[in-house]
Amino acid sequence: MNGPSGPTDSSLSIANSSAESVAADELKQFIERIERLEEEKAAIAGDIKEVFSELKGRGFDVKAVRSILRIRKQDHSERQEQDAILELYLQALGMAA
Amino acid sequence: MNGPSGPTDSSLSIANSSAESVAADELKQFIERIERLEEEKAAIAGDIKEVFSELKGRGFDVKAVRSILRIRKQDHSERQEQDAILELYLQALGMAA
Amino acid sequence: MNGPSGPTDSSLSIANSSAESVAADELKQFIERIERLEEEKAAIAGDIKEVFSELKGRGFDVKAVRSILRIRKQDHSERQEQDAILELYLQALGMAA
Amino acid sequence: MNGPSGPTDSSLSIANSSAESVAADELKQFIERIERLEEEKAAIAGDIKEVFSELKGRGFDVKAVRSILRIRKQDHSERQEQDAILELYLQALGMAA
Repeated sequence: MNGPSGPTDSSLSIANSSAESVAADELKQFIERIERLEEEKAAIAGDIKEVFSELKGRGFDVKAVRSILRIRKQDHSERQEQDAILELYLQALGMAA
Repeated sequence: MNGPSGPTDSSLSIANSSAESVAADELKQFIERIERLEEEKAAIAGDIKEVFSELKGRGFDVKAVRSILRIRKQDHSERQEQDAILELYLQALGMAA
Repeated sequence: MNGPSGPTDSSLSIANSSAESVAADELKQFIERIERLEEEKAAIAGDIKEVFSELKGRGFDVKAVRSILRIRKQDHSERQEQDAILELYLQALGMAA
Repeated sequence: MNGPSGPTDSSLSIANSSAESVAADELKQFIERIERLEEEKAAIAGDIKEVFSELKGRGFDVKAVRSILRIRKQDHSERQEQDAILELYLQALGMAA
């Protein structure tokens, strides 16, 4: 099994006991793959932030847009049922809009 | 089953169909209990924040104190094993302190 | 300034250079104060969890109760304005309930 | 100003008062852009998760790899200073490894 026991061949490999046997190359590749993916993810998060500031600049309400995005992820009937229960509780507590 | 079907007696009770039958009193009590507990929790979070600003004011390093708090939650042997593996990887990657 | 430079008197104190001068007692007290507060906070979080499972057991809808708690934190007029904008957008997108 | 007041031309536009004037097309495009970006972001988060399960399968320690990723984001001298303070505090509290 590879990993901490590391490949036995000449390349540096990871053994439970000492650094020399760490499969350094393999570990490094995993880390660099994750770092590249994290960078891509951060870039997209930045793009999303930009779209929000763009729509805000166009006069749209950010909170309402976030609610719409959340609602669009919900199953329609589930959303209707949830809205009905909430309305029922709001009325019971004298909080209906 | 109590709850949305609500108690059948005179007090307002919750029925699946209409607001009037919501066990309003019971629902209100649950909500107020949670609100009181959330207030207590927020107050303690405030106290923790105060202790951190106090120790910072006394010249202690907040990040290091947070690390100490995290380490103190760890099982000692687990911490030693974790430190050993990290050191092994750091050396393998030429990053040892 | 106390803290990492630590008191000069006999009690162990923290100096930038060596562990001996760390104001150990003071640091320990800060840490133990935070740990006690964290424990209290975790206990209250547990109590809140219990209330939710109790109301769930009584047949109430947890999601709806969370919405009610969120709405009760909102300023009434702010909530009405937010609901109005959301309804406006839902209708514009053909998503009105 | 565009946005809730919406373009005056024939396309459906959003006005503060009624749904008809909401710049529906524009709002829809913003929402669909965000949804596409959120999908891309979720896909990359999935890729990252896969790399972690791959490296775990290869015998590497996930926690240690996460620590390495965090350390690689840190400025080297900042890390050294942070490690030194932590070691100082650990020794002062009799917790040194």
